[in-house]
Parts: sequence; structure tokens; C-alpha cells
Amino acid sequence: MGRTFVSGNALIAQSGGPTVAINATLSGVVKGLREDTRIGKIFGAKNGVEGILAGRIEEIGSRLSTEDTLYALERTPAAVLGSCRIKMPPPEENKDIYDKIITLFREYDIRYFFLIGGNDSMDTASKIYDYSKSCDWDIRIIGVPKTIDNDLAFTDHTPGFGSAAKYIATTVQEIARDCAVYTVKAVTVIETMGRDAGWLTAAAGVPSLYGHPGADLLYMPEVPFDYDKFENDVRRIFKTKPNVVVVVPEALQDANGEYVSASTQSGAVDIFGHKYLAGTGRALEHFIRERIGCKFRAVELSIPQRCAGHCASKTDIDESVLIGRKSAQAALNGKTGVMTAFVRDPGSTYSVHIETVPLSQVANVIKQVPKNFLTADGGVKREILEYIAPLIEGELDIPTEHGLPKYITL
Amino acid sequence: MGRTFVSGNALIAQSGGPTVAINATLSGVVKGLREDTRIGKIFGAKNGVEGILAGRIEEIGSRLSTEDTLYALERTPAAVLGSCRIKMPPPEENKDIYDKIITLFREYDIRYFFLIGGNDSMDTASKIYDYSKSCDWDIRIIGVPKTIDNDLAFTDHTPGFGSAAKYIATTVQEIARDCAVYTVKAVTVIETMGRDAGWLTAAAGVPSLYGHPGADLLYMPEVPFDYDKFENDVRRIFKTKPNVVVVVPEALQDANGEYVSASTQSGAVDIFGHKYLAGTGRALEHFIRERIGCKFRAVELSIPQRCAGHCASKTDIDESVLIGRKSAQAALNGKTGVMTAFVRDPGSTYSVHIETVPLSQVANVIKQVPKNFLTADGGVKREILEYIAPLIEGELDIPTEHGLPKYITL
Repeated sequence: MGRTFVSGNALIAQSGGPTVAINATLSGVVKGLREDTRIGKIFGAKNGVEGILAGRIEEIGSRLSTEDTLYALERTPAAVLGSCRIKMPPPEENKDIYDKIITLFREYDIRYFFLIGGNDSMDTASKIYDYSKSCDWDIRIIGVPKTIDNDLAFTDHTPGFGSAAKYIATTVQEIARDCAVYTVKAVTVIETMGRDAGWLTAAAGVPSLYGHPGADLLYMPEVPFDYDKFENDVRRIFKTKPNVVVVVPEALQDANGEYVSASTQSGAVDIFGHKYLAGTGRALEHFIRERIGCKFRAVELSIPQRCAGHCASKTDIDESVLIGRKSAQAALNGKTGVMTAFVRDPGSTYSVHIETVPLSQVANVIKQVPKNFLTADGGVKREILEYIAPLIEGELDIPTEHGLPKYITL
Repeated sequence: MGRTFVSGNALIAQSGGPTVAINATLSGVVKGLREDTRIGKIFGAKNGVEGILAGRIEEIGSRLSTEDTLYALERTPAAVLGSCRIKMPPPEENKDIYDKIITLFREYDIRYFFLIGGNDSMDTASKIYDYSKSCDWDIRIIGVPKTIDNDLAFTDHTPGFGSAAKYIATTVQEIARDCAVYTVKAVTVIETMGRDAGWLTAAAGVPSLYGHPGADLLYMPEVPFDYDKFENDVRRIFKTKPNVVVVVPEALQDANGEYVSASTQSGAVDIFGHKYLAGTGRALEHFIRERIGCKFRAVELSIPQRCAGHCASKTDIDESVLIGRKSAQAALNGKTGVMTAFVRDPGSTYSVHIETVPLSQVANVIKQVPKNFLTADGGVKREILEYIAPLIEGELDIPTEHGLPKYITL
């Protein structure tokens, strides 16, 4: 920390699941690096660490040199550099891949490395940082947060979450209007992403803050799912109206730890050991048909919730650019082995500033929705909706052509 | 036809599946009726014909009396009057319900009846019209088209289709960008609505007109689905890139007439005798896993494609208001027993005018995608994309508040 300036080049990589805001962060890092004229070339790794290991490194600074291009990049969803889902083994298991990375850093004279990603990416950045300390190569390594799941610790929220939350709140409000047109008794279960934390599920409650149609019932992954309570909840809403809109996360477990999702019966796991989860809504369909016997529809919000650039939150995009810039500034000021993080300022008007936290603290910690945001019976309190509300504020001016958003490709 | 003006009141009903544009059409009818000062009150039926039969009729003219309210109504998705899915039996089977409707018309002095809906609604309007001719009650009955499916005959396209097509084209483009970030071989199957006609599925091809990422493969319900061809198509795309984006309709049948969709195995049908269809994507998952063994994701565009007001097509909304106004004018000019319809003007610049066609011709005819829009091997020609392209043009200025669209409720 606080070491003097090191001249050399910078490398930026994007990792993990795409978001609407990850390119805005890339733009921010480029802008921040540009502010210091002593920085050499800016490289991008294709497909994250996978690209670094394969030597797929490209100079991107010259292609991202105009305000117009950066403006368009900030309004383009998904990861323009590509992404990967590589789980880094500890160095003692596979020293070679760490050596390969350091060799590449030397080859391209990389003195500044930015990895934009979520939990698994922070673990990767942390491991590379730890290993780099034993090498004779002075490099600043910064993890820049990104995940729609909002489950990274030590940051008020994550870039990408606000836009996903806006998409979910908007879409649930629209689906609730759609469901309300009929008089036939019906249950509609809307499934959001969110494997371990209910932040995205809670976003579906935001329309209710303003009295708009939305979710009648919300079930959070932090709370054991109780089938009997669910039946009673649905019957209670049916007393007031014929259509019940329910929002659930992709993973719900009952008190015995069994997943509601039918598809987990296969036991398949991804390379991180996470169970493949899908179909909580479909599983509840069988339950509702049997217990209540009414019309049922399962709606998975699926991939669009993480890539619907046309529904981006201006607050999210602006902040994502900002945290990118601040990440570059932190590195230029000698910070390394840290993740940049949002700190919400006190007061009734929403604002944030950016600090840094050691990567070692952040990696592999999942921030679930805390108890004080949940009601005694497992629902969401007004406080969590008020926490989310400012993050979805503002509409971005997305350039369009022929009636379609005009996104860019590098 | 051509009878002299009849003084009295008007009744408007919305029917069938919600769309983004059906309230715009309601606004248009109200505007058109207002242009003639001799019209009495404007009533709305709650939940379509279901509401008429139950006497749930409300005066709506005074609530829709300001430009501001109509402006907001035109930007509100789903049906503000509510909807229904009633299949009208022929009068010889149930004369009572027709008598009930005519009695209500007399009671409220309804001389103008507008039913905004799709195929089934045009059948309903046609039957009520036929029956009314044998009654001593001079009434003008106009069917106003509405369906995202675009499967009504004798109209160039249907109000609501353009916005659904815009949502599909936008979302498929965004999903294709999302899929492109990884290097792992993967097939993503996106399922659109469309039971009998492939118009919505074809909309997913529009981004390709402009060289944007989008569907790599499209399968139309008008063409028997060939599993071997599908496997070969996927393998062919895999030679050029690791991710294949496939778009399918909710109903696909193989050469033997068997539905690809697994869920039709239950044999369940809705009240119109249509088979419940869902899960074509999920069914293809099993096929791809077995034949190719790569990563697979099924995405159902589901309800949002018909209610995503935040992604409305300006062309669609403007035209929906227009056809509403022209429907009112047609009735005031003595037309009855007709549906209003778009006729596309010749020439390279897109424009439409509105004509009328007898309800008896329209009812129960499903307009599939014609052969001249399909390639020899069952794909879509550039011509159908060029037919759809102008319908998705233009973005609507949706009022927002707190980061969410501000829709209205009557």
C-alpha cells in the first residue's frame, strides 16, 4: 500500500455472470486510467482468467478512446470482453497456472490488474494477489464488484443489482396488471434469480412501496419454506381478489433443507459445486393444483433480468462507471489486494462514496438478507424496499435504431 | 349499413389476452366517439362479455375525459376494463345469454357496441351481431382487432403485435449478447408465444436484418419440426461459434402431428378446446442433452411479451389509438357487423389506412405465416422480417416515477 507510482500497462478482465452494468464499470476503469497520463497501454483479457491463461490479451485502450464509444459501451449489456466461470485451485494444488499468469503480466508489462466480477472472481483476484506477493513483480490488483445477486459482503450493494432490481420490479408490476384482468381464480408464481440471497426476490416488492400492483406474496431464500403456510397465504389473498401473484427465488428450501425445486432431484452441480437450480415455480404448480386446484402459471424471469439493457437503472450505470474510475484511482494511488466498495452516506437523501476493503475479507463470503430486513413470519420489511428503492431510480437514454437498442461490440 | 344516425349510448368491452396496446385502442374509441357531440354516455363492460352478462357496466366517459388521462391510458399495458375468455355458444344452444345481452343494451340504451379482441372475440361479436338483427334494437356492432399473435385474417397486422414483436426482438438480442460471453458450448432455446402462427417467433429474426446478435436458428409452427434437421442445424452453428441461440414457438409439431412440448402429454385443454401448451424448450433440452450433450438453457418469454409496456412500440400504440378512433367513426357512419382492419399502403415508405371487413369473414379464421414468407427448408425469408420491421419502430415516452413506469387504473 502507498507505494510510489509504477509505470507500466494495465489489464482489465470481466468475469462471472453478465450484467447490464459490467461494461459501464469497464468504461469507468478506462476513464480512471486515462486521467493519469503516465499509464501505458490498456489491455483487455478475452473471457476473463480463461483468456489470460490462453494468452488472449488485446489492446483495448485505442478502441475505447472516444467519449462516444465509452458512452455507447456504458449502455451495452453483457460483457464485451467475454467472461468465464473458472474456479481457481489454490496455488499449492496448481502452481503452474499462477506462474502462467505472472509470466503473462511480465510479458505485457502489466502493473495494474482489474478483475470485474462477483464472489468467485473476488476469490480469484485474492488468490492471484496472494501469489503475486511471492514473485518479484510489483503489481496492483483490484477487484471491482459486479453481480446482480447483490450478495457481496463489505459493500452497500453491487453494481448490476440496481438494473436487475429495476427490471424485476418493472416486470412484476406489469405481470401483476396482466394477471388482474381475469376473474378466474389463478396463482402466478414468478421466479427470480438468487441462489443464496433474496435481494432480487425482495426487489419485486418495490412497486408496493408506491401502491402499485405487484407481488402479493414474497418468499425469501433466507427463510425455510413452509408449504402449509404458503397454502394459507394463498387462500387468504383469494378472499380479497381472484388472482394471486407470488414471487420466489430460484432456490427455496424447506425446514429439512430440501429444495422446493423439482429439477434439483438430478443432483447435478456446476464446477463450483453449486447445485443446478431451476423450476421452483413448476414445483409449486403441482402443490397448488393438488391443494387448491386453481389455474396456475409459472413465470421464470430467467436471463433477461441480468441482460435487459433497455431497462437499465441510471443510478446503477452512473455508479458502475464511478466505481470503475475510483478503482483505477485506487490502483494508481498504490492500493492493491483490495476490492472497491460502496458506502451509503447517512441522511435522508441517497448518496454513496467509495472505499476499499481487503480482497481476503470479501472472497467467498455471501451476504444474505439480514434478519432485521425480514418480518417475524419471513416476509420482507418496508426497510429493505426502502434500501432497494434508490438503486432503481432513473432511466438511461439508450440509443435506438430501427426500434431496437443500439449496443456496441468491441 | 349506411343507416342514419341513431342517438344513444356506447359500450366498450375488452376481451381475450391482454396486450400492451389494448388500452390505446380503448382511448381511440373514446376519442372517436367524443368527436360526435350527439353521442350520449360512454360505458365500459368490466371483464368483457362476462361483465355484460353479469350487468357489470360502468360509465367510463367522465373518467376518461381529459387529454392527460387518455395519454396515460394509452401508455398503460393490460386491459383496464378487465377481460374474459368466454366461448359463446351458438344462439340455438343458449338463446338466454343473447337475450340477456340485448336486454342490457336496451336497459342502458346502448346503440354502439365495440368489442376489442382477437379471434374468439370476433366470433363473439359476430354472433351477437347476427342475433341482434332478429331483435327490434337498432345497434351498431364493431369488432376492433387486438392480439399479440397477429393471427387475425383480413388485416395487414393486429394492434398489440408490434409491441410484442419489439419486446421479443429486443430481448432475444439481449439474450444473444448474454450467451455470447462464454466459450463453453451451449444451446439456449427461447420460447415465444404463438399457438398456431409463427409471427411472434419470426419477430426474433428482426435484429439480424441490421446485423445485430439474435437468433441463430428459428423454427416456425407452420413447418413440421424435424429433430434430425435440428441436430444438424445446431452442429452447423457450433462450427462457427460456441453458443447457439434457438427461437421456437410454444407449439411445435413434428411430421406426425405430435407436439414437441412435453407438457401436452396431460392432454389438458382450455375452454376453447385448445391444448395447454408449454415447455417446448424444456422438451428440446432432453433431446440436446442426449444427442449433443452440451450445456442447455430454456428461456420462456412468457407473460412479459404481452404486457411489457415499458418496451412498447410507438408505431403500434399510435396505430392502436387510430384504429380505435376509426372504429368509432365507422359506427357513427352506420357501419355494423364489421371489424376494422389495417391495409398497408403500397410504396417503400411504411403507412397504413383503415378499412372494414364483415365479422362473419374474420371470425374463427387463423392467419398463419404464408408459404411465401418461408424458405424451402422452413426458415424465415427476409421478406417477413421486412414486413415486421416497421411495426416495432419508435419508442414511447412512458411516464416514470421512482424509477418505475407510471401506469393508471380506472
